[in-house]
Amino acid sequence: MKLLTLSQCFLMAAPIRLTSITRRASFSSATAAVKFEGGVSMVQGASRGIGLEFVKQLLENNEKGHVIATCRNPNSSSGLIHLKNKFAERLCISQLDLTIESSIEASAKSIKEKYGHLNLLINASGILSIPDALQPETTLNKVEKSSLMLTYEVNAVGPILVVKHLWPLLKVGGASGTERDVAVVANLSARVGSIGDNHLGGWHSYRSSKTALNQLTKTVSVEFARKKDPIACILLHPGTVDTDLSKPFQRNVPQGKLFTKEFSVQKLLSIIQNAKRDDNGKFFAWDGQEIPW
Amino acid sequence: MKLLTLSQCFLMAAPIRLTSITRRASFSSATAAVKFEGGVSMVQGASRGIGLEFVKQLLENNEKGHVIATCRNPNSSSGLIHLKNKFAERLCISQLDLTIESSIEASAKSIKEKYGHLNLLINASGILSIPDALQPETTLNKVEKSSLMLTYEVNAVGPILVVKHLWPLLKVGGASGTERDVAVVANLSARVGSIGDNHLGGWHSYRSSKTALNQLTKTVSVEFARKKDPIACILLHPGTVDTDLSKPFQRNVPQGKLFTKEFSVQKLLSIIQNAKRDDNGKFFAWDGQEIPW
Ligand SMILES: NC(=O)c1ccc[n+]([C@@H]2O[C@H](COP(=O)([O-])OP(=O)(O)OC[C@H]3O[C@@H](n4cnc5c(N)ncnc54)[C@H](OP(=O)(O)O)[C@@H]3O)[C@@H](O)[C@H]2O)c1
Ligand SMILES: NC(=O)c1ccc[n+]([C@@H]2O[C@H](COP(=O)([O-])OP(=O)(O)OC[C@H]3O[C@@H](n4cnc5c(N)ncnc54)[C@H](OP(=O)(O)O)[C@@H]3O)[C@@H](O)[C@H]2O)c1
Repeated sequence: MKLLTLSQCFLMAAPIRLTSITRRASFSSATAAVKFEGGVSMVQGASRGIGLEFVKQLLENNEKGHVIATCRNPNSSSGLIHLKNKFAERLCISQLDLTIESSIEASAKSIKEKYGHLNLLINASGILSIPDALQPETTLNKVEKSSLMLTYEVNAVGPILVVKHLWPLLKVGGASGTERDVAVVANLSARVGSIGDNHLGGWHSYRSSKTALNQLTKTVSVEFARKKDPIACILLHPGTVDTDLSKPFQRNVPQGKLFTKEFSVQKLLSIIQNAKRDDNGKFFAWDGQEIPW
Repeated sequence: MKLLTLSQCFLMAAPIRLTSITRRASFSSATAAVKFEGGVSMVQGASRGIGLEFVKQLLENNEKGHVIATCRNPNSSSGLIHLKNKFAERLCISQLDLTIESSIEASAKSIKEKYGHLNLLINASGILSIPDALQPETTLNKVEKSSLMLTYEVNAVGPILVVKHLWPLLKVGGASGTERDVAVVANLSARVGSIGDNHLGGWHSYRSSKTALNQLTKTVSVEFARKKDPIACILLHPGTVDTDLSKPFQRNVPQGKLFTKEFSVQKLLSIIQNAKRDDNGKFFAWDGQEIPW
């Protein structure tokens, strides 16, 4: 007996429904658009924090829909392992390190093989501080080249490479299987990435990387619009959220302004699920307000 | 007979005037503020193009004032060598490669020894394309990690490290010897670095690096203001200027919109010479109009 490959096994197990090749399939000659009810979503940076919460709510709050959760070390994310036990067929975990482009390509390839398209891509990863390696700067005197370069690589370059490699699948996917009229790319930015809103200074590396992510996302959104791709690219500020990222800085947060992951992701998912073509290239806070560049 | 060191020779040759230690000298206990009539200006990225033109106009259009011109390969800039022959005492050439921080520190050290302070710093360097190494992207498909990283390193990180290492000398210098009321840091940005003004897309690496430079400059300006440093940090868009940088892209420039270096730098110098404390953190086009972030 010939053994099935992993991706064949997966396809047989998953509750998929083949549809006729839709108009959108003309974007990719290699892949027929396969419709998954509830759509196919990828959350990049899903091991913990806001990314993990996105995976959780996408699975728990919807009866249908598939989620690909990517992270650097799948075996050490207890949160993802827990969800995998609960949502075996609807959740696929894929290894992806933003700093290793081949791992992004490999994830894109496996999603193409398994689903043939994508309807939602959330880039939820991000770094602000790393013990003994990266500290947000309190003054220009503390700005180091290595911090600027590392933060740019992870917070700006990585997410854009993910969009680059998933773009063909998003074009094929569009809104298929979802209640939106477009596929969505949601890049997690931060209010401190706004130049117009920068009244406090500091955090040079992080700010600059998020501002660059904003410009890269805007640049990509212009091309998507010009090519009439069925994709809206948006930038999201989640508020100040109680995660590992904000932990060292929470004592300065005013009472009532530190959100739970649950609350923030619920708000962000509502922005994503209601996203229209017109939102392409915009930067929203958790409450739906636009943030100045 | 004991030989004089190079910097002693320089100080003896230069037409300097020692003043009483000014209020500003309190910023640096090690260096007394030495007043040079016409001020001390540094142009970083001065081998050719707009940077070289800044050096030329600063020397030719003023009877007094000292200029430090920095570039990667002083021996191969015929433009700088020509100016050095004409303005021996008022022009000092210093080797500086933005990607090598020790060369920035060495330039700062030698300026400290020779002049003790600085009144104007112009970061005029920049890369957009390099034959066989860097091409402005026409589509997301052509975005490469190496291009994003290199452009960020040269266009955003380098200039900010220059500001970091020259900051102490700018604090000491302030407006001394000039007709302004502040020292000026002028970072050459580009209109395509504006996110709000991005309607065309493309040029991902260059755009993103200039947007990041805008955010870094803004961040630095906030700290300078908070510390009441006598420094205004501004960002400048020179227009589309006939230099090596724009050469490969000039055929798309509408008639009359391609400026000479002479014209652009004359306009930019007028913005710089009229800069006030209030301009700190602003982004100006060659005609003095503010550009949105
Ligand atoms: N929390 C806040 O208050 C707040 C505020 C504004 C914006 N944001 C933004 O929101 C997003 C999520 O933040 P969070 O609070 O959830 O942060 P978090 O709890 O620290 O999680 C960060 C995530 O990024 C991943 N990551 C880091 N480096 C990576 C790499 N090289 N490749 C792939 N993944 C990588 C981490 O994976 P590992 O587990 O492998 O390290 C982790 O999953 C970030 O973009 C952040 O900047 C957060
Ligand atoms: N020209 C335009 O139309 C235009 C429009 C908007 C903005 N700008 C900006 O204006 C500034 C000046 O541009 P330009 O037209 O004068 O360009 P250019 O003629 O190409 O000159 C670029 C300068 O940057 C220097 N440089 C490059 N890499 C460097 C490094 N690693 N370390 C130190 N110096 C380095 C070059 O030195 P080498 O000789 O050693 O290579 C050269 O002096 C740039 O910031 C550019 O982005 C120009």
